Amino acid sequence: MPAMQRYALKIEYHGAPFVGWQRQIGLASVQGAIEDALAKIEPRVHNIAAAGRTDAGVHGLAQVAHCDMERDWTPFRLSEAINYHLKPLPVAIVDCVAVDDDFHARFSAQERRYLFRVLVRRAPATHQAGLVWQVKKPLNIDLMREGASHLIGEHDFTTFRSTICQAQTPVKTLDRLEMKEVPVSGGVEVHFDVRARSFLHNQVRSIVGTLERVGAGSFAPDDVRKIRDARERTACGPVSPPHGLYLSHVTYKTDPFAQSTLGQQ
Amino acid sequence: MPAMQRYALKIEYHGAPFVGWQRQIGLASVQGAIEDALAKIEPRVHNIAAAGRTDAGVHGLAQVAHCDMERDWTPFRLSEAINYHLKPLPVAIVDCVAVDDDFHARFSAQERRYLFRVLVRRAPATHQAGLVWQVKKPLNIDLMREGASHLIGEHDFTTFRSTICQAQTPVKTLDRLEMKEVPVSGGVEVHFDVRARSFLHNQVRSIVGTLERVGAGSFAPDDVRKIRDARERTACGPVSPPHGLYLSHVTYKTDPFAQSTLGQQ
Repeated sequence: MPAMQRYALKIEYHGAPFVGWQRQIGLASVQGAIEDALAKIEPRVHNIAAAGRTDAGVHGLAQVAHCDMERDWTPFRLSEAINYHLKPLPVAIVDCVAVDDDFHARFSAQERRYLFRVLVRRAPATHQAGLVWQVKKPLNIDLMREGASHLIGEHDFTTFRSTICQAQTPVKTLDRLEMKEVPVSGGVEVHFDVRARSFLHNQVRSIVGTLERVGAGSFAPDDVRKIRDARERTACGPVSPPHGLYLSHVTYKTDPFAQSTLGQQ
Repeated sequence: MPAMQRYALKIEYHGAPFVGWQRQIGLASVQGAIEDALAKIEPRVHNIAAAGRTDAGVHGLAQVAHCDMERDWTPFRLSEAINYHLKPLPVAIVDCVAVDDDFHARFSAQERRYLFRVLVRRAPATHQAGLVWQVKKPLNIDLMREGASHLIGEHDFTTFRSTICQAQTPVKTLDRLEMKEVPVSGGVEVHFDVRARSFLHNQVRSIVGTLERVGAGSFAPDDVRKIRDARERTACGPVSPPHGLYLSHVTYKTDPFAQSTLGQQ
């Protein structure tokens, strides 16, 4: 086997047509789409690893994966070639750099960051349909922030964890859980910014769904503490739908894309 | 004929499925969609007027139109009823207020404002496809701003006017023409904010297309002055495509929507 060159890929995608990041036989996945494209340019089985295995319908703004190539591609040529073969799927390699063999998109990642967009208004979504979770009742963001304060830091997140989650422990540390209001025509979008070293399965969507209930007045802010301490999946608010969720950033000790030369092409 | 109550409607839409705002027999238009919905709730011929007659493919964030109704609808019930009948089209009444008979969405408007989104990067658009104009070469925004300076204020805009434009005079006053850069994954979006009392047909798209050529280095900033002074349609840069353009605001002497009670429902 020839010496391989490893590349870090930054990937953007629309989640709608996919069963999620992870390859599943006979179904459209983001991983499968990229591996199929790689097989067109270096014909063999490819197996790429990503920082976050996003669920069906979840979008990627800056997913990170790595691949190993036999040919010594310039990052520009490699990204162009993959993007060519990805067409017309809504997946794009938006950045690409050659990295050392010890870089691992998943295991080297130090923090994952997610954006969740909630459109708050009565009128239906138009151009943003499929890109936001819409709720019709006004949300009290101050109460939501108060509720969120009970989730920041290290906690047992059993309540906010899918029953099929395979993580070894439900104890995770939320580094950040912030909300901002963005005015839109006829209403507001609430943007959640959630950061942690790693997340449990469905954790962000479970947290957003629970805090939405706080904003709507169904739960009091202090209920979030009780819900958390219940360590009981059934105590959780409704899990929000996937199409408002975006993997927005992955942090590494040294940002591999700081060395990118793609912008100079 | 019974006394009618006039309502101002704020309208959001995705431009893609429509031949534009204006009703055309046998074709899908935004005006036609709303008039058809009105005919479902008060069966007769409706004829609504809008502040900006957007072209095929152009989006609306806050288009304003008015309609006259026989029944004394609360604005909330009227907007809900229209939105119900608009489904599943990507058009929504996002605000609604009862106004005096002398309010005219088109003739009372004092300023129109447009947003134009340009996605600047090599990699294809994914979730934002159809919502931005994508260009692949980097743009020098400082040069674009210098070029734009020749278009602010009162000028003869013959160069930037479609040959089918029916305006009585090519002299218009641009109140504002600003650009800002918004970082996105793997590149940047340039957002144009353009304001004027009124615009010529294709004026915004002609200006954006010309300034893009400045940013890409095909034209020098001072060429914009020469192009303007040529008063010659053929001197214009390429007209940018419609799907990056949004009618973003309409200004009236008194904002009718300042009285809105919809947010309190």
